[in-house]
Amino acid sequence: MLTQSIYALAIYSLICSRAALAALPAAPARHRNLIFMVSDGFGIAGETMARGYIQSTHNYPLEWASTLDDLLVGTSRTRSSDSLVTDSAAGATAFSCAQKTYNGAIGVSHDRKPCGTVLEAAKQAGYLTGIVSTARITHATPGSFAAHVVHRDMEELIAQHMISYNSSLTPAPTVDLMFGGGRCFFAPETPNPAAGNPTSSCRSDQLDLWQFAQKNYGYSTISTRSQFDEILAADKKLPLLGLFTNSHMSYEIDRDPAEEPSLTEMTQKALDMLHAASTVPRGNSTAGAPGFFIMIEGARIDMAAHDNDPASHLHDIIEYWNAVAAVRKFIDTHPDTLMIGTSDHETGGLTIGYDPEYVWYPNILTPVKSSAEVICKEIRPLSKDHTKLVSAVVNKVLPKQLGITNATHEEINDIVDGAGGSAKACKHAVGHVVSDRARLGWTTGGHTGVDVGLYAYGAGSGTIRGNKDNTHVGQLLADFLNVNPETITPLLAHQTTVQEGFDANTVDLNSGKPGSV
Amino acid sequence: MLTQSIYALAIYSLICSRAALAALPAAPARHRNLIFMVSDGFGIAGETMARGYIQSTHNYPLEWASTLDDLLVGTSRTRSSDSLVTDSAAGATAFSCAQKTYNGAIGVSHDRKPCGTVLEAAKQAGYLTGIVSTARITHATPGSFAAHVVHRDMEELIAQHMISYNSSLTPAPTVDLMFGGGRCFFAPETPNPAAGNPTSSCRSDQLDLWQFAQKNYGYSTISTRSQFDEILAADKKLPLLGLFTNSHMSYEIDRDPAEEPSLTEMTQKALDMLHAASTVPRGNSTAGAPGFFIMIEGARIDMAAHDNDPASHLHDIIEYWNAVAAVRKFIDTHPDTLMIGTSDHETGGLTIGYDPEYVWYPNILTPVKSSAEVICKEIRPLSKDHTKLVSAVVNKVLPKQLGITNATHEEINDIVDGAGGSAKACKHAVGHVVSDRARLGWTTGGHTGVDVGLYAYGAGSGTIRGNKDNTHVGQLLADFLNVNPETITPLLAHQTTVQEGFDANTVDLNSGKPGSV
Repeated sequence: MLTQSIYALAIYSLICSRAALAALPAAPARHRNLIFMVSDGFGIAGETMARGYIQSTHNYPLEWASTLDDLLVGTSRTRSSDSLVTDSAAGATAFSCAQKTYNGAIGVSHDRKPCGTVLEAAKQAGYLTGIVSTARITHATPGSFAAHVVHRDMEELIAQHMISYNSSLTPAPTVDLMFGGGRCFFAPETPNPAAGNPTSSCRSDQLDLWQFAQKNYGYSTISTRSQFDEILAADKKLPLLGLFTNSHMSYEIDRDPAEEPSLTEMTQKALDMLHAASTVPRGNSTAGAPGFFIMIEGARIDMAAHDNDPASHLHDIIEYWNAVAAVRKFIDTHPDTLMIGTSDHETGGLTIGYDPEYVWYPNILTPVKSSAEVICKEIRPLSKDHTKLVSAVVNKVLPKQLGITNATHEEINDIVDGAGGSAKACKHAVGHVVSDRARLGWTTGGHTGVDVGLYAYGAGSGTIRGNKDNTHVGQLLADFLNVNPETITPLLAHQTTVQEGFDANTVDLNSGKPGSV
Repeated sequence: MLTQSIYALAIYSLICSRAALAALPAAPARHRNLIFMVSDGFGIAGETMARGYIQSTHNYPLEWASTLDDLLVGTSRTRSSDSLVTDSAAGATAFSCAQKTYNGAIGVSHDRKPCGTVLEAAKQAGYLTGIVSTARITHATPGSFAAHVVHRDMEELIAQHMISYNSSLTPAPTVDLMFGGGRCFFAPETPNPAAGNPTSSCRSDQLDLWQFAQKNYGYSTISTRSQFDEILAADKKLPLLGLFTNSHMSYEIDRDPAEEPSLTEMTQKALDMLHAASTVPRGNSTAGAPGFFIMIEGARIDMAAHDNDPASHLHDIIEYWNAVAAVRKFIDTHPDTLMIGTSDHETGGLTIGYDPEYVWYPNILTPVKSSAEVICKEIRPLSKDHTKLVSAVVNKVLPKQLGITNATHEEINDIVDGAGGSAKACKHAVGHVVSDRARLGWTTGGHTGVDVGLYAYGAGSGTIRGNKDNTHVGQLLADFLNVNPETITPLLAHQTTVQEGFDANTVDLNSGKPGSV
């Protein structure tokens, strides 16, 4: 009887879900911009934690809402084609290609064929395009919008695709503006020492993608904070490749503003540049581009949750809020713009409060000054000298970096033991000392399958509501721009999707196991 | 700089939140019914788990949505006035009185004064009223809609309030229909053996509330499945008090349909009866009541999560879905009805999937036949006879009740050890054996502070969207019925809010600690 009623529910729900799919927001008649924001690994619990933190530490009213709370319109389901728990590659491809694929897949379908993305379709339709991320620009989320490889670890090939090296798509390049980290995959194995070139390489070949981008497509390439500051939106200098770190950009809690721009600064500059460039007349027409599409990722929210590091998680969430506030401000002056925001999945299984009392203590996070990542980079090399290690933990890590001046023997031992283990063990040890004091719990160093928040603002946002599948979110993007990613798919038929020299034996493509975080 | 921008965000958000508060759905001009559904302790993770379970075990499409998924319109914030993590009493009072109060408070304000509830205001305005719960009807959630006591543990006094014993409100009784558990608080300390009377008492006095309800207000009182089945909606026999168990009703996984009606059956009958009774002309008028207000609670979703018992959690969620499907069906034929559904808080810190792989295994839950509660009631008494206990665990609990035929020594030992501990330790031991195999994690036997889902269907539901404070959800209820709970508050000024003989020393009213679950 239970089974029958479930079945009846199923049929009913299926019909209703399909009806909902048809009710997409009407695309505006003319100029339009689409800003897609991805808060990687950010769950409903992360939002609640950050809100509670700000409420408590700033003594705001009980009903105070964050800038993101105001934009919540529903939730997004996150499962992939081969698991109830997705990785970021399948999660991002659900958005970019509007289809389910397997964990690890970057812009390829479940049967490992390249699938056209909304960004590529937008470019083909004349829109300007941008990608901003605090991760390596070759990482899973940014990669899934402009690259097509069978596994996320093939970052050398992803770098090639990102700058349209050997692309079958015209006009090339596909991505007009990129801000983020990950220079090292654009440098030849033996780096080219000329000024401004990447000085460190993650490649196993001699391909100089930095120079290729400059020479073949006229990319402006920048890699420093001062170069970032010098660029004026009015210059309309696209295409532009700005990668400010060799690998991922810093956690917000660690970031040196003199070295790296913030997510909010990159967001503001990207919007201003894409907007200015879209007004430039093209060809024989006096009209500019029909608008722009940009994907903006708060990438390290996820990585802090992998590390079970609550203060780093918090500060990257607050920085993401600031970026959302900048987007809201842009939309308020450019009302032909829609923002859709969501996460690819939750990370860490964050819990707010646990046995035995119904409380958590936000103030514990206030004095934390460094990420667990930075702390562990400092103390793990000391693990062979026990005295030195203990001294560093007792005299620096606990009092100065975590703000804990009354550490217990157990807390000291936990961090000392962690420092002698793997990088992950060390970061978890540091993260758990802070989390336990704050009464924040974590159940995993990986992802969980729970639904995440869906947010929208601006043109056409009024009709978006409810619980959506992640592929439906992808469809919303395409529909707003009035483009169809499937029309791109045939053009990608001969795209190389396996990295040369890649040892397929080191990655089980069928396991659903992610590569790196 | 960070602080400044957060402050700017705060002001902006506050203004926007207040603007949102003003944009409530317009109440219909005439007849209207309001169904408020509370899924106690049910988080976004619980919904995702149940959906994944049904998808996987029924081989439904990847995009399949539950009957509840289709109704999601936002999320609700859950914090109380004295903690970032609420209990069910403060959570329910936020809905019933539309105001923040302290953990443990039943229908009283933060300063411990009775606050008028939406149910009482609805009754005063002529609506018929109902309460359905699978918990004791004197438990925190149902209690907060018609009782006013300073601590949830004062269930003797709550029982008095529920049937308007010594009430200052007219017309009495306040609640026209109640279905649920918890007969024992309505029987005198020395139970009255007459047929149909409660045979067991939880009271410390000789008050016979069962008889009081019959004699003073003409309540029909029922306590068996067959009496439930005999009642026909057409009889319009209100007021009606139907309590089918001495304490809480059974978990759905354990329920004997010959003994207890399901949540769905109680929901259907309550809606039909309230609707039929609302058409009966009153006084000199030919018109009936303006409609009805009912609060329906899936109460034991929460208790299963307290026990970290995933199969019981799952089956109570699915039964809640079925009740929601029945509500949808009612609304489809009575379109002047609005359903709003939400949870008071999340319980258990449920995680879907954990290290090292990105998977979870729904099939593990399929063969589970008993709740951890029932199992522990059976095996804890055996803990003094180790051989008997081990035999029960090995021969019955694992293979027959949990469906595990290849148990490890560790799993056996965990349950045996648990059986020798507290009831909670035993239930957690049983629940964790199943959870670990399914890769479902829990971080607490209590509540967490994470936001929960908000659902709506029917009249006026189209304008409800976004992240709401729980007090705002309460305001939505009042506004739909066009009533103001604050007008009731002065009428309750002399209501007794402290249970006579209650040892205030056993409960710290300031701690924010909950009483029972």
